[in-house]
Amino acid sequence: MDMQNIENQFTELKSQMAALGKKTAEDKLSMVVFSGDLDKIVAAFVIATGAIAMGMEAVMFFTFWGTPVLRDTKKSVGGKDIFGKMFGTMLPKGVGQVKLSKMNMGGMGTAMMKSLMKKKNVASLEQFLEMAEELGVRIFICEMTMDLMGFKREEMIDYKNLTFCGVAKFLEEAANSKIQLFI
Amino acid sequence: MDMQNIENQFTELKSQMAALGKKTAEDKLSMVVFSGDLDKIVAAFVIATGAIAMGMEAVMFFTFWGTPVLRDTKKSVGGKDIFGKMFGTMLPKGVGQVKLSKMNMGGMGTAMMKSLMKKKNVASLEQFLEMAEELGVRIFICEMTMDLMGFKREEMIDYKNLTFCGVAKFLEEAANSKIQLFI
Amino acid sequence: MDMQNIENQFTELKSQMAALGKKTAEDKLSMVVFSGDLDKIVAAFVIATGAIAMGMEAVMFFTFWGTPVLRDTKKSVGGKDIFGKMFGTMLPKGVGQVKLSKMNMGGMGTAMMKSLMKKKNVASLEQFLEMAEELGVRIFICEMTMDLMGFKREEMIDYKNLTFCGVAKFLEEAANSKIQLFI
Repeated sequence: MDMQNIENQFTELKSQMAALGKKTAEDKLSMVVFSGDLDKIVAAFVIATGAIAMGMEAVMFFTFWGTPVLRDTKKSVGGKDIFGKMFGTMLPKGVGQVKLSKMNMGGMGTAMMKSLMKKKNVASLEQFLEMAEELGVRIFICEMTMDLMGFKREEMIDYKNLTFCGVAKFLEEAANSKIQLFI
Repeated sequence: MDMQNIENQFTELKSQMAALGKKTAEDKLSMVVFSGDLDKIVAAFVIATGAIAMGMEAVMFFTFWGTPVLRDTKKSVGGKDIFGKMFGTMLPKGVGQVKLSKMNMGGMGTAMMKSLMKKKNVASLEQFLEMAEELGVRIFICEMTMDLMGFKREEMIDYKNLTFCGVAKFLEEAANSKIQLFI
Repeated sequence: MDMQNIENQFTELKSQMAALGKKTAEDKLSMVVFSGDLDKIVAAFVIATGAIAMGMEAVMFFTFWGTPVLRDTKKSVGGKDIFGKMFGTMLPKGVGQVKLSKMNMGGMGTAMMKSLMKKKNVASLEQFLEMAEELGVRIFICEMTMDLMGFKREEMIDYKNLTFCGVAKFLEEAANSKIQLFI
């Protein structure tokens, strides 16, 4: 083995190392929040804020039933077609209106759970959303769902790290994340 | 450090690199499609076809409620026992019969969603299945579910990349994938 | 390139390799078992025990509706407040009481599924739990849910690898796992 040979081997090892480095995931958590249920959304925020607390990045991609939950209760927009009006009315507007996936019991179970969460010092969804914003959790909202349900950008919540995007953006984030969950 | 020493170090580094290489995941997405709901199956196909569009591989493992959805409406088989007949009748046969997980409202919500998807140029499940086949999305069907629900291979859809398999095959794919989701 | 240079390059490559090694995931599966439904919990155990059979590690993190399912039917504790008593009574106690997420039909569907599983030689949840223990599946129980639902440690199942923990512990395991699922 001569010097030229040694240099060649170093060059090759370094380029292999760089290639491997690109294939390893970042310290990041990516979640699809498909559900619009109180229990699952609380779980999603517990996980997202927990990830940040551990020094990871966190990305939440709200789609389908998760989307209407991010509407701002203080905003309302006009000019919707009949479908848009129906979805607008029937789906929960804002995190305050979401219900338990089970034991809702006409709202009683959900109310009970909320009061329990308060009593046990678990943050409410409103507080989780604030914490997530402060901690730098990035929120993506699925454009296809917005279009399908007739939601407009003007009626969604104000949130620092909010992006409207398609599935490609989510997959890009997820592929570089150590953890991916569909909730 | 003499030449022998240098060679030894190169050999060791290379074998470590190879070991690391085997531990990094492929550019692949693996999904368990457990659900048999319209909304979730649409989401699964949006994600799978989106992954292929981004140059990734995509694998969908249909199990439990997701399995009956892949039956071919034009095929029917005899010789089933009483349980097989019950499952056969009660569960959706083919992607055309799946319902929304929420707001189904006796079928009205599902019909509305389908007409909305059409209006907004979102592919129907029938079209997604065709696209998935063309794009090379691989579909696995859980053999344990087939057996449990009394489905026979002859009644499932024709699809180019279709494999009947157990959980081990899914785990093998998932362990080598950058993204795994349970839908 | 002199000897000093060669040594430096080896040192750098080795430390890069070690850093990469820390970033690659272990041969491990981490699952959040959020659901308390028979079908989903069976799926979770099929996947967890399957992973062990393939030589992987497996971790199940039981939270929310999944938590009451791990109560021991033979144990009962007193001193609960009104909420604790309600949750205790309304939620399934032990794996024997869980129901199908669909087609429960007042318990008939669930009973039918159980008898079918037996007939088709699929393990019951009781058997899966035993197998999981023997195989070394580690079970985590979410402390926040325990507190929220008023469960006490004394009423949970006896299980060799059982830990009560928070979301941070789950995220730590998940970040080092090749596969993560939210069920």
